[in-house]
Amino acid sequence: MKVPKKISIKEVGPRDGLQNEQVLLSTSDKISWIDMLSVTGLSYIEITSFVHPKWIPPLRDALDVAKGIKRQPGVTYAALVPNRKGLERAISGNIDEAAVFMSASETHNQKNINKPISETLPILKEVITEATEAKLTTRAYLSTVFGCPYEKNVPLEQIVRISETLFEMGIDELSLGDTIGAANPVQVELILETLLNRFPKEKIALHFHNTRGMALANIITAMNMGITSFDGACGGLGGCPYAPGSSGNAATDDLIYMCAQMGIETGVELGKLLLAAKWIEEKTGRQLPSHNLQAAKSIDCFS
Amino acid sequence: MKVPKKISIKEVGPRDGLQNEQVLLSTSDKISWIDMLSVTGLSYIEITSFVHPKWIPPLRDALDVAKGIKRQPGVTYAALVPNRKGLERAISGNIDEAAVFMSASETHNQKNINKPISETLPILKEVITEATEAKLTTRAYLSTVFGCPYEKNVPLEQIVRISETLFEMGIDELSLGDTIGAANPVQVELILETLLNRFPKEKIALHFHNTRGMALANIITAMNMGITSFDGACGGLGGCPYAPGSSGNAATDDLIYMCAQMGIETGVELGKLLLAAKWIEEKTGRQLPSHNLQAAKSIDCFS
Repeated sequence: MKVPKKISIKEVGPRDGLQNEQVLLSTSDKISWIDMLSVTGLSYIEITSFVHPKWIPPLRDALDVAKGIKRQPGVTYAALVPNRKGLERAISGNIDEAAVFMSASETHNQKNINKPISETLPILKEVITEATEAKLTTRAYLSTVFGCPYEKNVPLEQIVRISETLFEMGIDELSLGDTIGAANPVQVELILETLLNRFPKEKIALHFHNTRGMALANIITAMNMGITSFDGACGGLGGCPYAPGSSGNAATDDLIYMCAQMGIETGVELGKLLLAAKWIEEKTGRQLPSHNLQAAKSIDCFS
Repeated sequence: MKVPKKISIKEVGPRDGLQNEQVLLSTSDKISWIDMLSVTGLSYIEITSFVHPKWIPPLRDALDVAKGIKRQPGVTYAALVPNRKGLERAISGNIDEAAVFMSASETHNQKNINKPISETLPILKEVITEATEAKLTTRAYLSTVFGCPYEKNVPLEQIVRISETLFEMGIDELSLGDTIGAANPVQVELILETLLNRFPKEKIALHFHNTRGMALANIITAMNMGITSFDGACGGLGGCPYAPGSSGNAATDDLIYMCAQMGIETGVELGKLLLAAKWIEEKTGRQLPSHNLQAAKSIDCFS
């Protein structure tokens, strides 16, 4: 097994996590939580989304959050940006990185963005170009890479073609999303084999959900192929709110624990991250799926 | 990645799972559950433990369970057996395989079995010899291979030496236990590299707990090294009862799902296994940690 010396974790809890929670957090709670995350050693936090408030009401306070947090040196503060208008707000909120998003499958893209892929790409190009001009770095999320809830398997050629287009637009990183949380290690290897033949491994991140318990198995597989950038959510936040035990994003806590055990540097202090996980668990009022959070609670690490 | 065509799953839920649950199941409930498991396609079920009832009161009805279940052809019914007296009861209960157990670390062995390793081995030898004479197959559990709650790391030479002794006694399979649920893929690779140089891979099984979410990552690592026998518990039963969300054994359900997605044969029908998981979840009265069980419930697979 080849494991990297160091990986980079992109904390997406405040955005991907909170946008799926039932409980509406106050703006000041969001700010407090991001401030806690900022001092864990994380070097990247996606703090909110500048989509239109009617799409994701829980994140309608995006600008207040961006303006309210206490920035730490060395931390990149990113936000989701759907279009030029969102980018303007993100820039006024002093965001460091703009993250655009689309799906690899036509149906999911249509349902999620309300446009076909062909009409989505030009909008993303505008955002990426203008963000770059404004000295922001850019990232693109490509959803449904490992399966689509409507179309099942997404052709690999389509994933390659869209990735190519996004890289040509100048994105700094492409995050491949396992939207339905059903990716498996063999599939991860297969898809990465093709993509890594065409794109630099330093520019590819993986975004897994732990819906079927395979997030860390997929991450270990990707690490073994040279990937060093992974998205995670503190506490494993982001599970479907209608299913009490369903797992959301790969838990940053679990990823950090695994890396620490394997001698891989993440820069993050697990103890501090678990405090942030426990804090947000109490706010959401539901048991979060992070294994290390539950293990730490059971051995009373917090008292 | 090299994945096997086929793996064998040793279902340990009725023993390793139930012995850790707070809720006491009635004998007839245990029998009903084992009968459900028997028709899922599982080829191996560890149904109980013939240890002295004062040690594990929830399994004091071992003989009644063994006599009450409806045996299916092609299924090996195994039980934990600590000594000759336990073996006699197991034989009278018509058990197919006797599983002995000990720890790789002295302190854990002493606390768990109340004897030093040196005094444990002769007892295990008796059981293995007599079981073999009685035409039972035998398996040995070696606990704390990946870490001991008292001694932390267990020297690899000690693991090798005890494994060697157990194989010389004639065991058919050695199950290496991640007792504290903290094994990681790099460690799995390291330990297996040494063991597979000395013992046939067909005779080694791995027994992971999902306490830190790494069970499937460890299993994929072991599969890649040629291991094809894995212990699992239906529903992920067996978590510490004092920690509501803590994960127990690797969930058989999650292992089967992952294998099915990767084209690896297990012989088990996931739908039937999930019904058995849902049934035992209702009996235990707590949310079980199996990811696929929770995912299936959330999309209402059972209605």
